[in-house]
Amino acid sequence: MWFENKMMRTFRCRLRQKPGELGHLLEAIGDAEGFLGEIKTIHMGRGTVIRDLVVFADNAPHMDRLIKVVDDSTLAELLEVRDEVMEMHQGGKIAMRSRYRIDTLSQLRRVYTPGVAEVCLKIQKEPGLARRFTSIAHMVAIVTDGTAVLGLGDIGPQASMPVMEGKASLMETLVGLSGVPVLLNTKDVDEIVDTVVNIAPTFSAIQLEDISAPRCFDIEKRLKERLDMPIMHDDQHGTAVVVTAALLNGVKMAGVDLSRTRIGQIGLGAAGLAISEMLMHLAGQPVLGTDLAPDAVRRLEEAGGRASSLEEIMSTCEVVIATTGVPGLIKPEMVREGQIILALSNPNPEIEPEEALAAGAAFAADGKSVNNILGFPGIFRGAIDAGVKDITREMLVAAAKAIASSAGEGELVPNPLDRGVHLKVAQAVVRTALELKLNREDLTGYFDE
Amino acid sequence: MWFENKMMRTFRCRLRQKPGELGHLLEAIGDAEGFLGEIKTIHMGRGTVIRDLVVFADNAPHMDRLIKVVDDSTLAELLEVRDEVMEMHQGGKIAMRSRYRIDTLSQLRRVYTPGVAEVCLKIQKEPGLARRFTSIAHMVAIVTDGTAVLGLGDIGPQASMPVMEGKASLMETLVGLSGVPVLLNTKDVDEIVDTVVNIAPTFSAIQLEDISAPRCFDIEKRLKERLDMPIMHDDQHGTAVVVTAALLNGVKMAGVDLSRTRIGQIGLGAAGLAISEMLMHLAGQPVLGTDLAPDAVRRLEEAGGRASSLEEIMSTCEVVIATTGVPGLIKPEMVREGQIILALSNPNPEIEPEEALAAGAAFAADGKSVNNILGFPGIFRGAIDAGVKDITREMLVAAAKAIASSAGEGELVPNPLDRGVHLKVAQAVVRTALELKLNREDLTGYFDE
Repeated sequence: MWFENKMMRTFRCRLRQKPGELGHLLEAIGDAEGFLGEIKTIHMGRGTVIRDLVVFADNAPHMDRLIKVVDDSTLAELLEVRDEVMEMHQGGKIAMRSRYRIDTLSQLRRVYTPGVAEVCLKIQKEPGLARRFTSIAHMVAIVTDGTAVLGLGDIGPQASMPVMEGKASLMETLVGLSGVPVLLNTKDVDEIVDTVVNIAPTFSAIQLEDISAPRCFDIEKRLKERLDMPIMHDDQHGTAVVVTAALLNGVKMAGVDLSRTRIGQIGLGAAGLAISEMLMHLAGQPVLGTDLAPDAVRRLEEAGGRASSLEEIMSTCEVVIATTGVPGLIKPEMVREGQIILALSNPNPEIEPEEALAAGAAFAADGKSVNNILGFPGIFRGAIDAGVKDITREMLVAAAKAIASSAGEGELVPNPLDRGVHLKVAQAVVRTALELKLNREDLTGYFDE
Repeated sequence: MWFENKMMRTFRCRLRQKPGELGHLLEAIGDAEGFLGEIKTIHMGRGTVIRDLVVFADNAPHMDRLIKVVDDSTLAELLEVRDEVMEMHQGGKIAMRSRYRIDTLSQLRRVYTPGVAEVCLKIQKEPGLARRFTSIAHMVAIVTDGTAVLGLGDIGPQASMPVMEGKASLMETLVGLSGVPVLLNTKDVDEIVDTVVNIAPTFSAIQLEDISAPRCFDIEKRLKERLDMPIMHDDQHGTAVVVTAALLNGVKMAGVDLSRTRIGQIGLGAAGLAISEMLMHLAGQPVLGTDLAPDAVRRLEEAGGRASSLEEIMSTCEVVIATTGVPGLIKPEMVREGQIILALSNPNPEIEPEEALAAGAAFAADGKSVNNILGFPGIFRGAIDAGVKDITREMLVAAAKAIASSAGEGELVPNPLDRGVHLKVAQAVVRTALELKLNREDLTGYFDE
């Protein structure tokens, strides 16, 4: 998103009740390069109005300048500057709750001892019952070592907790799963794998989050080998699903057939490699890729892609996807007539969509269009509901198609808070799981039950 | 508790609306050795009443016999036998919830990106803020390998989940903490310690649960060495706190001074050893102990106790505590006049309290009187609120005294669902933490902030 790393404050202002006053004030903020969010009317008084303005700045000194602009203005009295986000994060955003009231000893005897003993013994005798009679059925570990958080990099496990809590909040809100943050005190691949394996019985699925490349590849691969449960590194596959969804709608809008286009991927980190792999699977042909790290290029080649260069990709590919983290890497003069360009780095893309379009691109979008929230909740809900032991590429492609088909006319992707979209994603995953079972008899034991 | 391992069912019966009918039916169930719990009136009809009877049996065949008794009886029509406990456990008893609704993109921007980035950066700069702006502040890991669950023994981690969920439910209900079950896939001491250390940043405290002796001693000790946070093995110290509370009230009722009595501990497992240690601390003199395992006796000696025998303890001690798991171990002829006896094994004690009293004991109680729920919630709440890096014996003793003083006239311990008791326990722990800080200047860095 464009404002990924922006600073946000709420200005409470008293203005005169006179047409044009608010406009003038907003103009003054705009002149100082401040961007505005929601504007709420708090109180309509006699001759004055109190309003809350959400203001975005680039950084703290910029915010100070914006505050001074409003403070010095004769248009408004600045009553208060609030940090609503910090207020909201106070005390954390998630909590483990009891699903039952326990007010009487009789309730206690059901929830706890002695009632619980029989439930335990039943599960001991028939382990599959844990799925029915415990919360394991809806628990998903959200595992991070805090090494690649948002655009912030290696900020450590505890500083990444607000992001993990956000994901857990969304997990419950959108699909009713219990996301449990697991913050790791180690960056060692062996230790991370062993630790997750050792606590795995607690969960129905494992979501890996914000673990830096190349460790993330190895960690995911080894966990998938050692555990019979859905495991997904969201920054790879969740991102690939949502980017693919956006691209499917993009090529449709541009009137292009994906299987007949040359696709280039600039930047082969966790997201870039996963996007390439999914597009190769979908388009049935190699993706051209480039990265400064030779190891990253080698990984693409191993996955069936072809090593290329920025220049070759820009001059020969009809579809170009960039995930480099380098703003402005793609110059307008590199753009080829009719190209489809997704420049996804946040907060600033490799090329601004308007610039790309002006340079001749048929279609262009940046990272604002792509929100991971669209992917992981429905993918995990579907994988858990289907009882599969693995999230396969087929399921991910089905999820991408479900997201793409949920977008409205002229939209790349749908509203991430539309619960209907997440249900569609879950259903697509379940349907794929069922088809895989029907069509591939070799997958004996693929399903739990 | 007496019914620790009993089976519980709800019988829905239609009876004639006639005085005495219910009594006759209950008599028939009692004649077949069935024990009754709550009786609810479901419907008063014309000439008939529908009632739900909660019935306890020793095991499944016994329950079948009780069902047959009611089924065959002319006193009632058995409409339905329900397993309400299993119904209640369906889908699990806990869930991770979002503390905020996320219905609009504006809420999303606050809970998740971009708002979250600033919170993350603040915590990265000042790690202490994690306590204020994340859920870590109220998260307690409830860690088990499932090796010593209730009276059931080594049933494995997943089968123990209903117990861990019960503890998490109570944690939230009684003191507002978020208990997070962590089920371990390993019984290896090194692996358990490493795993817990690796996930520790997620939590404010660690509760070890139902881990078998002697591994539990080593695991707790090593975790306390490696982590600067409250860690407590509930089966040791939680139990010791509650038993001590009961004993404090017991000796008061019997008019005895604890510091002048000889105390004997029969059975030196996890609970027995911890009880001895707390009583030695409180009474200022060695406890006599015995156990079949030489290692267990050695551990008592290392803690300052004295090796003894069942015979010596029974013939010389004024206070006897038994935690052996051996029903009927103490014969009436062993009981000394005026003795105080806590025979705590569940479901069947070493000697029934009535038997002990008949044989001359001044005071006798069994495990029904002791419920761990009284201890751990308030202890953790207090330790977290005080921001201490360790739960000390002084804090545990303060908790025991708070529980003892909360009991009503003639009660050993108070009602475990009385939230006021848990608040008192938490306050006692916090007060002790503050005193320790004031009186022991050597404890620099004892407090987080």
